[in-house]
Amino acid sequence: MRILGLDPGLLNTGWGVISIDGSQLHHVAHGVISPRSSLAMAERLTVIHRGVSDVLADQVPDQVAIEETFVSVNADSTLKLGLARGAALVAAAATGLEVSEYATRLVKKTVVGTGKAEKHQVAAMIGILLPGAKSARNDAADALAVAVCHAYHSRTLERIAAGLRT
Amino acid sequence: MRILGLDPGLLNTGWGVISIDGSQLHHVAHGVISPRSSLAMAERLTVIHRGVSDVLADQVPDQVAIEETFVSVNADSTLKLGLARGAALVAAAATGLEVSEYATRLVKKTVVGTGKAEKHQVAAMIGILLPGAKSARNDAADALAVAVCHAYHSRTLERIAAGLRT
Repeated sequence: MRILGLDPGLLNTGWGVISIDGSQLHHVAHGVISPRSSLAMAERLTVIHRGVSDVLADQVPDQVAIEETFVSVNADSTLKLGLARGAALVAAAATGLEVSEYATRLVKKTVVGTGKAEKHQVAAMIGILLPGAKSARNDAADALAVAVCHAYHSRTLERIAAGLRT
Repeated sequence: MRILGLDPGLLNTGWGVISIDGSQLHHVAHGVISPRSSLAMAERLTVIHRGVSDVLADQVPDQVAIEETFVSVNADSTLKLGLARGAALVAAAATGLEVSEYATRLVKKTVVGTGKAEKHQVAAMIGILLPGAKSARNDAADALAVAVCHAYHSRTLERIAAGLRT
């Protein structure tokens, strides 16, 4: 099973794909979509929308997980995150796949062990968990972390559901 | 020439189309896209994206104008506005039409005469300027107001440009 993780942002939208093989997680691919900041807002969002659509078409994930937007104290940053996230969500939803959302804190806690981990700590742990992702930049590492978070929690839920059935 | 005005929101995305015939503005159509709030976020954004795409296909506007998102003191509201706006902007940008943005304050000042006008004052003035739009709900009236604002300001710019050429 393949999971696409997304970490949307107006400057950099990270994406990362992992596969689950039994109890093993494998790195498949990752990247960052970075629209030129000189473009008009609608064009920047189009670059994100097309980029995520292309990743979905190329990587054919079975499930999609997205980082829940951090609500900043800065209204302008929050708005920009919302714009980028809207563009990415629309692309993901168009495939008909269910999109799971995970709070940044849970992603960090799952991958590093603490919800207050720094970005470089997330990237370092992702490099250990998924050796193929060693070169991943922060935004792509964050996206891979969302995918790992989904793999972990959806399997936890599956195990709980399986336990309830037995 | 036909102008589509958009007033995106997660609960209600208003849209309105006007045509310019010489110096006359005419009401063409208006409506509100209201995704059920029980849907998941990705689905709500998909309803907005599809709704705006359908309006663009049905109404075939020559130009698109959108209300610049009001940056609220409430971070969660700001984020939701950003999400809705991102979904609408992606749909508009996909047509290749240029999307002009107007601050709420300028829209109100253009239509009512003061940037601090209330929603019902905007709706009342739109009903007078565009008799066909008398029944427009607030969100659709706001969208028509954005279209009127664009008609006025783009024509002002054209007149200035024409003046400079003569």
